Order: sequence, then C-alpha cells, then structure tokens
Amino acid sequence: MNFTLARRAARLNPSVIREILKLTERPGVVSLAGGLPAPEAFPVEALREAAARVLAESPREALQYAASEGYGPLREWVAARLAAQGLPAAPGELLITSGSQQGLDLVARLLLDPGSGVAVESPTYLGALQAFAPCEPEFVPLEGDDDGPLPQALAAARGARLAYLLPNFQNPGGRCLSAARRDALAEACARVGLPVVEDDPYGELWYEAPPPAPLAARLPGSVVYLGSLSKVLAPGLRLGYVWAPPALRPKLLQAKQAADLHTPGLNQRIAFEALKDGLLERHLPAVRERYRARRDAMQAALQREMPPGSRWQRPAGGMFFWVELPAGLDAAALLPRALDAGVAYVPGAAFFPAAPRANTLRLSFVTVPPERIAAAVAILGGLFREALSA
Amino acid sequence: MNFTLARRAARLNPSVIREILKLTERPGVVSLAGGLPAPEAFPVEALREAAARVLAESPREALQYAASEGYGPLREWVAARLAAQGLPAAPGELLITSGSQQGLDLVARLLLDPGSGVAVESPTYLGALQAFAPCEPEFVPLEGDDDGPLPQALAAARGARLAYLLPNFQNPGGRCLSAARRDALAEACARVGLPVVEDDPYGELWYEAPPPAPLAARLPGSVVYLGSLSKVLAPGLRLGYVWAPPALRPKLLQAKQAADLHTPGLNQRIAFEALKDGLLERHLPAVRERYRARRDAMQAALQREMPPGSRWQRPAGGMFFWVELPAGLDAAALLPRALDAGVAYVPGAAFFPAAPRANTLRLSFVTVPPERIAAAVAILGGLFREALSA
Repeated sequence: MNFTLARRAARLNPSVIREILKLTERPGVVSLAGGLPAPEAFPVEALREAAARVLAESPREALQYAASEGYGPLREWVAARLAAQGLPAAPGELLITSGSQQGLDLVARLLLDPGSGVAVESPTYLGALQAFAPCEPEFVPLEGDDDGPLPQALAAARGARLAYLLPNFQNPGGRCLSAARRDALAEACARVGLPVVEDDPYGELWYEAPPPAPLAARLPGSVVYLGSLSKVLAPGLRLGYVWAPPALRPKLLQAKQAADLHTPGLNQRIAFEALKDGLLERHLPAVRERYRARRDAMQAALQREMPPGSRWQRPAGGMFFWVELPAGLDAAALLPRALDAGVAYVPGAAFFPAAPRANTLRLSFVTVPPERIAAAVAILGGLFREALSA
Repeated sequence: MNFTLARRAARLNPSVIREILKLTERPGVVSLAGGLPAPEAFPVEALREAAARVLAESPREALQYAASEGYGPLREWVAARLAAQGLPAAPGELLITSGSQQGLDLVARLLLDPGSGVAVESPTYLGALQAFAPCEPEFVPLEGDDDGPLPQALAAARGARLAYLLPNFQNPGGRCLSAARRDALAEACARVGLPVVEDDPYGELWYEAPPPAPLAARLPGSVVYLGSLSKVLAPGLRLGYVWAPPALRPKLLQAKQAADLHTPGLNQRIAFEALKDGLLERHLPAVRERYRARRDAMQAALQREMPPGSRWQRPAGGMFFWVELPAGLDAAALLPRALDAGVAYVPGAAFFPAAPRANTLRLSFVTVPPERIAAAVAILGGLFREALSA
C-alpha cells in the first residue's frame, strides 16, 4: 500500500542551507555559509559544570517528563532578561521551545490558514519561510530601503494575518532597525491592523551599541516575540522561548504539547544552572569582541576584494554580511566553482519570498577566524571578477 | 490589533492527562494517573558519566548545530536494536525525533489533510489524537475484542489515509497483539490498501516474554514505525525515532527541519555514550523486574478491591491497567472525590476518538511502589463501591 501525502507536504522543501552545509563538510572547504556560532566561543566549562551539578543534584527531575510550559527557574531568568530590555514579560507568560525554530512553527500552526497573508521582509530568514510554508500562506514581500522595511509598504499587507519581522541584525540582511523606523513601523502596523511576529535571535550580538527596544515594547498585546539561547549560549541545547499575548497562550501551549510534549528538562536545567550566576555578563563581552574582530576582517576583505559595483552594509551586529554583486552575476551558478576553490557561501535567492535576486549572497563572519576570512573572501573576489570579465 | 486563529487551532485541546498531572502535584496525592517511568529506575550513574564524557571529549560538536537526520552513531545503535527485533532498518533510514510525540506530529503533517480518514483503536493513545487533531482528520474507530482490533473491522476504514496502531502493551488498554492477530491485521491492511503508523514506545517493557515481531516486519514498505528511548532510558532526554518507507523520507526530513531544525545533539550523544556498551542489557532486566512486581501488586489489589462487575486484563507489559467499572459509574465525575481521598487516575473518556465510555479509567502501575499501589487501589475500590450503593 502506498502512503498518500497531504497537500501541505508539497510546500515542504529541502533547506538550501542544510544542503550547502553538507557540501562544506568536504575537507579543505572554508565555510562562510552556515549561521554557526564559533564553537570555540561556547562556554564549555560552565556548561560542563552545570551538567554535572544538575545530574548530581536533581537527576530524577531532570530526566523525567516535565511541564510543557518549560522549567520555572529558566522562565524566570528569561523574564528578568527581557525586562531589562524593556519587555515586561512575566515568567508565567513565557513558553520554552525547542529552539526558536519551533517557536516559528508553533506560531504558524496557530495563526496561518491556507491562503492567509504573511507580510515578510525581502529577503528574510529562510527557516521562517520553511516553517510557515506547510501552512500554505501567501507571502507578501514588504518593500524596503537600506534601513529596513518601509512603513508605508505595510498598507499593501492589509488583511494579512501577521507581519514577520527581524528588527535586530536581520538574517540575511544584517541591518538593525533604528528606533525611529521601529516607531514608524509600529504605528503603521497599528494603522493597518497588522499583528507582528518579532524574531530576535541576534539581539544580544551587538558590536557597537545595544539595539533599540523591541517592537513588542512598542505594540503591547499585538506582538508575539521569539527569542533564543542558541547564539548566546549554544545551539546544540535547542532552547528558545516565546512571549505571546494572553489570548494566544492557551492554544500555543496546546500546540506545544501536541508537537513534542515539552522541551528536554535536562537541557533547560543545564542552561539555567549555567546562566543563573551571571554567566552572560562575563561571557558575552568576549563573544562580542571575537565576532566584532571577524566582522571587521570581513569588511576589510570585502573592500579589498569585491569587484566594483558590489554593494553591502557593514552589519552592526549578528552574524552576516549580505552582498549584492554587480548585475549579471549569478551567485548560485558560481557556487560550484567557489566550492572547488575551497570556499562556501549561501546564494541569496532562497531568502526571497518571491522574485529572487540572483546576484546576492550571504556570508557568515562568525564561524572562522579573521585570517581565514581574509583568504576566503580573496578567493571569492577573484572568482567574481573573473566571472565579470568572462 | 488582534491575532486571528487558524481554523486548525480550534482542534487543539488541553491535554486531560497534563491537567490531571497538575492536580497530582498536590502534596499527599498518590498518582496512578501519569505514564511516568519510575524515576528511581533511571540509569542516573550511566547518564551522568556519559554526559561528563561527551562534554569533556566532544563539547563543541555536542553544543553546535547538528544534522537534522540525527547523530550517526545513535542511528546505528537504534538500527542494530531494531534489526534484533526483526526490523531491517538501516541507520540512514532512521530519523531521530524529539520524543516519539514529535514522530506522531511529523507523520500527521505529512499524511493528513482536512477530512482524511485515520483508523484508530478505541480507546487509543490520547497524545496521538492530539497530534493528529490539528490536521483535521476524521477518526474511524476500529471495533475490537479483548485481543485487540478485529481484522474484519478494517474494511470500514477503506479509503482512510492510515491506520494508527499500538501493537505492544497499548496505551491505555495494556493489551499486546498476538502473532496471529498481527498476521491477520497485516493481511487485512494489505487487502483494504491501508498503510500503517505503528507506535511502539512500550515494546521493551515486557514482563513475561518479548512481544511478537512488529507489524513493520510483516508489511515491509507500508508501515511508518515509531520508537522511543523515553521508557527504556529516560523521558527527559526527549529522544525518539522514526523508520519510514523510502518514498516518505525526504519529506519527513524536511518536516523535521521546519519543526525544530534538529533534536539536541547533546542529548543524542549522551544517550549514545550511555547505551553503546550494552547498558540496556544490564539495565532493562532490573526495570522489568521492578515493574512486574508493581503490576502484580496492582493486579492483586484490583482483585481484592474493585466492585463486582468490574473488568480488566492483566497487562503482559507496558505501564497501564485499563479498568471498566460497572455500568452507571462515571470515572470523570468520581475523580474529584478520589483526589480528595489522595489518589489520582485518568478517566477513560479522553482516550476514545468518539463515543467515550464514562465507566472506564486508566491506572499506571509503574510510578509508585507496591505498598502505595495497594493502599491507593483500596481507596479507589471503597469509593467506587460506595458510589455504586449510593
């Protein structure tokens, strides 16, 4: 007997990034492709001690089934951290998720019917497009400028179910919305009647100054806010969190129960044990310094190596440069040659909800050290210039 | 602005069991409600050593983003274990999930459209009904007898997308399908053209003899098989696995990526480190002995205490007794009195896809020791007899 696939299965797609990540496992390839935090920046010692403590002091609780809402002390820690950023989240209002990817998935299942409009930046986070797609929404790309989506563009999204926005150091674009742009976008959302899903995995990775307060602080009750410990602690723990308005919380919790009962208690307890005594205050400055140096190395290398007519902004945080090559170059078509030359990147096309621009690519600056960044960008520059003159 | 809920959100429901679990946290309540493995049976020492080893020897790999398919060595371990049970699963054919609840969720998203038929035992696993419900299927309850669903009942499910079956020590019914019944059901599924989702979280928890080979071994290519480490190792790790036919694997992997990128690498590595040297061979006999004694204590207590006209089968494995009280008793209505008297159970109604039988309840025998089982069942017996004579 054959299985019949559900209609939504046609909307599932292989992740371009995960496919490229496989190629980068070839020995000798320097990967600027993945959004992988630098593993040498993981607070290994703190996590090792935390794991030992959890498994010595409360092994049975850590290894047993646990509450779907998440581990109470971790929710309290997250709430305090959000409060410091201007978000008055109470611990009981937070749901711990299995990474913030799960937050996106749960939100989609809760809010999107086939044909529902979803306003998105263009380009936007590929994983969100993938999480939303099986619910069969219609993506409404928002026009933007170098400073982010344009407030007046939201009028085109009237009637959509939500706007999905990444104000802080967007993936893939790298840009951070100014306070003024945030205010204007919040006002426009209110005018158009458009609730917001605000995704903030990178907010703590700022290299000059902390970003302005989140949209959730500007539109109370109308924003689902998603956060993550993947970039500040370690992604392999798979820990994220959702702060949703009261009307959504019961159904959100039920969707979580149906999806995987609960996020592993062991991981939540290890994270809390590691974080509770101010680990991030000690750890994040070093991470920021490391990543800032790598960003600066990539900025310098791009300036040296990219062909004339290329465009990019130096990101003030996060993990990515978004590069527009001179018209006529096709980043996807050039990738095999780059891989042969030992460098991987992500062609930009997959980040567009519609009308992909072939001459774009995303470069991660956090995974490899400055000298390898310089060498890898030099290889790319040579390849792109060669392609231009061909 | 208000969020608009998707149509499927109306099909999400609070988990009756999770609601009852909250009540059982009252001090002094003996809980026969949850399907919680006995925490004193967790192999804490082995997991503690495994965690220390993983975080000493490969911390960066364990804490980094990882493959959506799962950790290779763990997949090899699972494949070898399944092979020993007659399932020729290759490691590359397995997907590691965040508990087998996630396996159910992914399967539903892949296979169920609104209105799709799903043949289910009646009663059946509540968590599966919850995972399937948001996809808006039509449940087709299968008629059964004391030995499980009747092969001839499958004719009524012709045209359904799948049959969801738990052959081994079913939750909540406790019964294990005989080899002959498995053969007859496999033949009936083939005749009716009905693929199967086989859920096997309890197969290793046998107390007299291992169960017959799974349906997946009898219907090659037509069964999605779901397994779990929750009952043999520890549920707090949230580790399960799916073995699906080749045609489903790419989409299943994409659904997993969209749902949560991957199951935590840390947990997978800890489990593998703990399991690789034959932990289960040393550990499971003790778990079985412990649970067998508790099952026998509950069987004896039920024989002593239940009012005449009550019916149940002694389960040959798993975690649950399924009790039918004399007609007229309503287990849900009696629960508050039981809680006041210090005992929790799960009323049976929630396990029925349709036409719930109010006089049924599920009792877990694995969480509490024999003497407390005896006392708790005595309290329930008194309460039920009193209700009968009221």
